[in-house]
Amino acid sequence: MIVVMQPGSTREQVNILVSRIQALGLGAHLSEGEEHTIVGVVGSPLPPSLEDELEIVSGVERVVRITKKYKLTGWDFHPQKTRIQVRDVTIGGEAITIIAGPCSVENEEQTVSTAKAVKAAGASILRGGAYKPRTSPYEFRGLGRRGLEILATAREETGMPIITEVMTPSDIETVNEFTDIFQIGARNSQNYLLLEEVGKARKPVMLKRGLSMLMEEWLLAAEYVMAQGNPDVILCERGVRTFEQITRNTLDVSSVPVIQGMSHLPVFIDPSHAAGKRAWVPSLSLAGVAAGADGLMIEVHPSPEQALSDGAQSLTFDQFAELTPRISAVAEAVGRTLPVPVLAV
Amino acid sequence: MIVVMQPGSTREQVNILVSRIQALGLGAHLSEGEEHTIVGVVGSPLPPSLEDELEIVSGVERVVRITKKYKLTGWDFHPQKTRIQVRDVTIGGEAITIIAGPCSVENEEQTVSTAKAVKAAGASILRGGAYKPRTSPYEFRGLGRRGLEILATAREETGMPIITEVMTPSDIETVNEFTDIFQIGARNSQNYLLLEEVGKARKPVMLKRGLSMLMEEWLLAAEYVMAQGNPDVILCERGVRTFEQITRNTLDVSSVPVIQGMSHLPVFIDPSHAAGKRAWVPSLSLAGVAAGADGLMIEVHPSPEQALSDGAQSLTFDQFAELTPRISAVAEAVGRTLPVPVLAV
Amino acid sequence: MIVVMQPGSTREQVNILVSRIQALGLGAHLSEGEEHTIVGVVGSPLPPSLEDELEIVSGVERVVRITKKYKLTGWDFHPQKTRIQVRDVTIGGEAITIIAGPCSVENEEQTVSTAKAVKAAGASILRGGAYKPRTSPYEFRGLGRRGLEILATAREETGMPIITEVMTPSDIETVNEFTDIFQIGARNSQNYLLLEEVGKARKPVMLKRGLSMLMEEWLLAAEYVMAQGNPDVILCERGVRTFEQITRNTLDVSSVPVIQGMSHLPVFIDPSHAAGKRAWVPSLSLAGVAAGADGLMIEVHPSPEQALSDGAQSLTFDQFAELTPRISAVAEAVGRTLPVPVLAV
Amino acid sequence: MIVVMQPGSTREQVNILVSRIQALGLGAHLSEGEEHTIVGVVGSPLPPSLEDELEIVSGVERVVRITKKYKLTGWDFHPQKTRIQVRDVTIGGEAITIIAGPCSVENEEQTVSTAKAVKAAGASILRGGAYKPRTSPYEFRGLGRRGLEILATAREETGMPIITEVMTPSDIETVNEFTDIFQIGARNSQNYLLLEEVGKARKPVMLKRGLSMLMEEWLLAAEYVMAQGNPDVILCERGVRTFEQITRNTLDVSSVPVIQGMSHLPVFIDPSHAAGKRAWVPSLSLAGVAAGADGLMIEVHPSPEQALSDGAQSLTFDQFAELTPRISAVAEAVGRTLPVPVLAV
Repeated sequence: MIVVMQPGSTREQVNILVSRIQALGLGAHLSEGEEHTIVGVVGSPLPPSLEDELEIVSGVERVVRITKKYKLTGWDFHPQKTRIQVRDVTIGGEAITIIAGPCSVENEEQTVSTAKAVKAAGASILRGGAYKPRTSPYEFRGLGRRGLEILATAREETGMPIITEVMTPSDIETVNEFTDIFQIGARNSQNYLLLEEVGKARKPVMLKRGLSMLMEEWLLAAEYVMAQGNPDVILCERGVRTFEQITRNTLDVSSVPVIQGMSHLPVFIDPSHAAGKRAWVPSLSLAGVAAGADGLMIEVHPSPEQALSDGAQSLTFDQFAELTPRISAVAEAVGRTLPVPVLAV
Repeated sequence: MIVVMQPGSTREQVNILVSRIQALGLGAHLSEGEEHTIVGVVGSPLPPSLEDELEIVSGVERVVRITKKYKLTGWDFHPQKTRIQVRDVTIGGEAITIIAGPCSVENEEQTVSTAKAVKAAGASILRGGAYKPRTSPYEFRGLGRRGLEILATAREETGMPIITEVMTPSDIETVNEFTDIFQIGARNSQNYLLLEEVGKARKPVMLKRGLSMLMEEWLLAAEYVMAQGNPDVILCERGVRTFEQITRNTLDVSSVPVIQGMSHLPVFIDPSHAAGKRAWVPSLSLAGVAAGADGLMIEVHPSPEQALSDGAQSLTFDQFAELTPRISAVAEAVGRTLPVPVLAV
Repeated sequence: MIVVMQPGSTREQVNILVSRIQALGLGAHLSEGEEHTIVGVVGSPLPPSLEDELEIVSGVERVVRITKKYKLTGWDFHPQKTRIQVRDVTIGGEAITIIAGPCSVENEEQTVSTAKAVKAAGASILRGGAYKPRTSPYEFRGLGRRGLEILATAREETGMPIITEVMTPSDIETVNEFTDIFQIGARNSQNYLLLEEVGKARKPVMLKRGLSMLMEEWLLAAEYVMAQGNPDVILCERGVRTFEQITRNTLDVSSVPVIQGMSHLPVFIDPSHAAGKRAWVPSLSLAGVAAGADGLMIEVHPSPEQALSDGAQSLTFDQFAELTPRISAVAEAVGRTLPVPVLAV
Repeated sequence: MIVVMQPGSTREQVNILVSRIQALGLGAHLSEGEEHTIVGVVGSPLPPSLEDELEIVSGVERVVRITKKYKLTGWDFHPQKTRIQVRDVTIGGEAITIIAGPCSVENEEQTVSTAKAVKAAGASILRGGAYKPRTSPYEFRGLGRRGLEILATAREETGMPIITEVMTPSDIETVNEFTDIFQIGARNSQNYLLLEEVGKARKPVMLKRGLSMLMEEWLLAAEYVMAQGNPDVILCERGVRTFEQITRNTLDVSSVPVIQGMSHLPVFIDPSHAAGKRAWVPSLSLAGVAAGADGLMIEVHPSPEQALSDGAQSLTFDQFAELTPRISAVAEAVGRTLPVPVLAV
């Protein structure tokens, strides 16, 4: 860490800073420039809030952290890319993974038929919401435990692992009875107690990026899960909030290469929530795969016009079946694979 | 609600739309323009996700909601401004309310001395965090129950009501034993289950605006609390996230008049989290009061250089005592009051 | 256009509104709902600032435009996708177009060698800045006319058409002597007089998206060029400004399908300015092509470590030569082509 | 400037960096930490794009500038706050300055009557647009030279200095014949050639903040004007673009104290463009003055319902006359003054 003193700072201010650094068991390294005195702080590990502590010493202009705050999610101590095994699906390998399914589990028929259709077209994991976060308290909130049971039925009938969202620590136990992967939604991406509790659950966790979350904050949120001993975190970009209103969110496709440079964790793209309209879902899916994403999470519904939530952004079975061969082609073009069943092509 | 059909939409598509509207027990009102056919939807109440349901009917270009989604927080059914009584403090009246105290409760001496100092200078409610949300899992997270006990001691010694943050439903019971007002932080502003649980607790709730929360979403979040029968919600603007990096957040001071036009709930300003640096806290405090805020929430610490969190944005006792008479003067200038003890002036 | 009256609006207010609409030679269509009276405005063309004019009539709550403000850039009056011929290069056809070259023209050797290298690897148009917009007045601003002459030399030696930025109306004449395509930079994207002047110049214009420009504003900016009779506008997405600081800008890859749905104009992606670091340029290039972009504009420099501007985001010759075959593969995968010379593969 | 090397950087990479620094006539100062080697760069002045040049040397992780890029606008070489004399009005002194008038000059009667009304209520400078930037090419663009003549007539009749926008270098000469202050609009805030040309004109320049402009970029834009020898620049905050759509822009009131800490230039607030609706203009005006702004720029129109532009955000004469005494009261409360004519109170 580097501490930059103000132009007119006094020798006494520098001394106070240095004592403070040494009192923390760290070393201080002085360097006097023409305008600024600069103090390097060495020692390991640096306390996570050291910037805050040093920034407030009088005479200090700015503190610059050199080392990263995130550890478990970074490459430094984990030089292999993380691969996650969920039943017979491997996430993070050469093959890309498609998670598909309805926004909300509405009934058995809807969910099972969707599971079969998306499996036939190349998806390998089934998504479906049983507990739904809704902006307004007057909207449909999901079927709860009954929804989880329906997902389990769909798994039995298709063999696909399932992923579903958990919204609060007290639901973790129930969701854990059924799910293969926990999903943490964008609005809960900094609900730290939920992250820790789900970190104790020993099942993979998919962590969506918050609406205005910095990439570093995203890794630190994943760090909450991993710090509980759970190594299996998947990051999922679903668009950030900007001034643009035509799209529901602005898909930050650059998060794929940037996060892959910072972290060994798999990165997925959710084109459905980013776009908000089904017409744009195919393009964003292809863009995500071309950028190097390890997988996609796509909303599919047997009859989007009847969906209880997010119908506008859900693909029909046919649209999904037309899309997966195109995804497969782009995957091949960038050196990945997506095995698409022959019938679907 | 108005449904705009695409230019080339067919008569049959319009008929399907109309049947769908009527199936929901609502009326449809046709109006054919030169380019677009427009269908008005009448009936009350309109289902909250009706846009989503109609937007996906084929031939529809756009759906425009005319009536508001928020109800309990709006003026329509509550034409008087909300006043909230917390012990002997009235929030939302002519007098503005200053909440002050340390970011985190660190020990009894720190908290009690701060309580006495801010009370002497004009604050009427004491803030202090016992459970702290931190971006990194490796940072100080607060004293928990011990912190609440210390806040209670400070209340006993000064007579000031206290406000503290609750982060998860399972902590509500414990926090409820001690606090006078629940605070919901920005990162939990769309943690809907927490909002509902705190809504059942029958104590006032201060709801901070999320980092990229629209004002309408903020009112809908407050609606979650009020829908549980809890009428006492205070909204607190603490800055939103923008591209600007010098300030910690960008204080959206316009939220004061805009929310006051939309809602009867009191609106506060938190200049400390918005600024991120103590030098800018006084200007933002004065701006908030001039814009018509019902109160301020300001971080104060006996020795900011030693603070365990947010030291850079905390005022010293002296800085706070210098600020309150200035706040009082601006309050008077805009037809409000802030009684400042004579000694403080 | 639809005008929504406030809940308590009077009959007289509605009458005044209606008279005002009729005075403009337009028709008004009344529709009374339970809460709101709604007035439809019909007639063609609607004045472009009609919203503003009606929004201020007393009793009006909101005005909603149904028809689009942009005309020449939209599909309604131009149902074929625009193809632009620049010497022997066709933009907007099945083949995607790669524009490459240095950020700034520095000298003949640098520019000509880059032109040859990028041509050999599959680029078909040469870029290079002779007039550079710089955030600080103390930075390198380009060689001016000498830079244009060097670009012309590079064109002679390679046969590649050239594109270069023009920053102010008085430079158009000079730039016009040399360039094949005018580039309007992000910071000038709403410099309307420049847009009009360049619209008179009868050469293709590439219009970069502004840092916080809505897609509709972008089309309206293009409309300024087209309204002067110049049909050959290329739109280029180069990232928008968000809170994220790791990337220079946030590439909004969804602008490709969204704009293609709204407009017949070709859309390009500039991955270099979006990323800000060369490591991320390949991923963003591939993502852009997969999303359906009609072309890419990529910065390449013989020795990025010596570049006078934007070195950090420029590819070396080798990096560019490795990238184009990958772009070609993704282009094929999405039904487009990029002819890459055999030697480069 | 500090250069942070990557963890695994080699001694040779460091040597290359050091040679490069020395080749620029600067000194390099090595400091080896446990994880990172750090190189301090000393010498003065540092080239403005030195970060870019060093960031691309191989082995470099990050470059951190310690000294500021802006010079003439900063306090370092100009320790007195700038006061600008415009005829008999002093900007930047104890008294705050109110600029008021219509968005567009429409005719003599409208402009002169507005001038008289705002002067009577306490404004001291008249604003009015003769050249208007409009998002769409089909909107009203101002009266041009005739508009300037009308402004001059209003000045003659009231004695008020005038301010008007200039949009392109070729209009500067004409505008200069009439105006007392040049206004550069938000969309031209990084039109550097315009900034330089107006810097040569030797009249005060008001520079509006761009829609997504960082405060440092704003000062650098002002630096373009000052670098031409023109010391009289006024900065005007008019709101930045965010995700919030209720307000036209989000007024960043914190720019007042932040800029005042960085620069000696006067800072104004434009509440009209920030709000977009007249109902919120008073609150934002008062907030701006309370935050310490040196002045306000407010749109006023004799009959906003008839305005050719920005009617929705313009105050009527009565609304303006009611507002100025309130502004005066807040100004007094923060140690400033606004002389309001007795009749107006």
